[in-house]
Amino acid sequence: MTSERLGTLYGLGVGPGDPEYITVKALRLLQAAPVLAYPQRRMGSKSYALTVAEHYVNLEEKEALGLVFPMTRDPEVLRRQWQAVVDAVWAPLQAGRDVAFVTEGDPLLYSTFIHMSRLLMQQHPEARVVPVAGVSSVFAAAAAFQLPLADGDETVAIVPATHDRTKMRAMLTTHDCVIFIKVAKVLDELLDLLEELGLTDKAVVGTRISSDEQLLWRDVRALRGADLNYLTILVVRT
Amino acid sequence: MTSERLGTLYGLGVGPGDPEYITVKALRLLQAAPVLAYPQRRMGSKSYALTVAEHYVNLEEKEALGLVFPMTRDPEVLRRQWQAVVDAVWAPLQAGRDVAFVTEGDPLLYSTFIHMSRLLMQQHPEARVVPVAGVSSVFAAAAAFQLPLADGDETVAIVPATHDRTKMRAMLTTHDCVIFIKVAKVLDELLDLLEELGLTDKAVVGTRISSDEQLLWRDVRALRGADLNYLTILVVRT
Repeated sequence: MTSERLGTLYGLGVGPGDPEYITVKALRLLQAAPVLAYPQRRMGSKSYALTVAEHYVNLEEKEALGLVFPMTRDPEVLRRQWQAVVDAVWAPLQAGRDVAFVTEGDPLLYSTFIHMSRLLMQQHPEARVVPVAGVSSVFAAAAAFQLPLADGDETVAIVPATHDRTKMRAMLTTHDCVIFIKVAKVLDELLDLLEELGLTDKAVVGTRISSDEQLLWRDVRALRGADLNYLTILVVRT
Repeated sequence: MTSERLGTLYGLGVGPGDPEYITVKALRLLQAAPVLAYPQRRMGSKSYALTVAEHYVNLEEKEALGLVFPMTRDPEVLRRQWQAVVDAVWAPLQAGRDVAFVTEGDPLLYSTFIHMSRLLMQQHPEARVVPVAGVSSVFAAAAAFQLPLADGDETVAIVPATHDRTKMRAMLTTHDCVIFIKVAKVLDELLDLLEELGLTDKAVVGTRISSDEQLLWRDVRALRGADLNYLTILVVRT
């Protein structure tokens, strides 16, 4: 049965990990929404988004909607798993209940909210979706290092690190500041490239920025061969 | 006379304009600091940073430090005016009083806080400086337009718009998403470039994002010849 009034899906950026990095806006909407949707990991450990949410709300007083996001490459399984996520979010919306979907950092920058809300709006064009901007880990990293990202006419690039060395080099030679995200899997290659370009001393690395588990390295040489967390950022002021 | 304990200078990003886009962390530090430093415009109109601060604190209960930032190109006048700003901020810090310096958006991305804190630390290496990340207008613009900036391996560039057409074109042909800031003074040139690259329909423009005076344009053709506010952003998903 469809309610007269549809609920609203709020995509709340709750910041990079420190609960205090949530905005007043996201906090108000989080507390008001009857349904809390959050990314659920298979292996027990909590997402930062849920940790931040639990700092402010009692899960037992909400309809808690743990969403398992697809990790498979099988297109048919992928489609089916995404569909399950969309259906789970649409059910309360259709019943007139607002859903606060919490997401680390900002909801429109490398977030599961992007794909999920796109699918939802394709299937239910009448859906009401409101993203609320949040503090990205990129900026929290700059603050942690007291590192200005750009001033005046300087440019900044945000780049998911890949094995494409030509592309990574082009980013470093074009911009005044490059923020590489998801660097763990290609760290040694990036370190080689920095060495080649004489930029090793201009780089810093941080992981789990602003959380209790934050680690910062100002000497990136120490990291060769290291096994770092997925949420690792490398910032270079060229 | 120097106090035993130096005060701390907090560089608080208070978000792009909407008072609710301040973080819980910046709000706490803003309320606790005895001294509030803010950019003061010569011509009476309030900065967004001050407007946000006044939403939460009573200026009469603070030591209010309105800072007039240099606008001159005369190097000697420039140096003297910056020195006056640094001296004004150092005085309470030296007397052991914390200073909350409020700044629009994020304090380490195109903010007067960058140059001011750099000068302060050069002259007073013992100064205690703590930047607190904020929501940049870039992300508030994405939220206002419900426009995903990047997902997967996509890259983003943040680019102050200039007359350098070759550079502007390179940004548009290299990145999946380009966010041009300070576009007012070169808007028509940017529109020409978008037309040339077939990107006119992929661009949106917003000004005074998230404030009461926010304006959004999804058809950028309407803007040719327009006299827009300094704080205008053009986002292109290429």
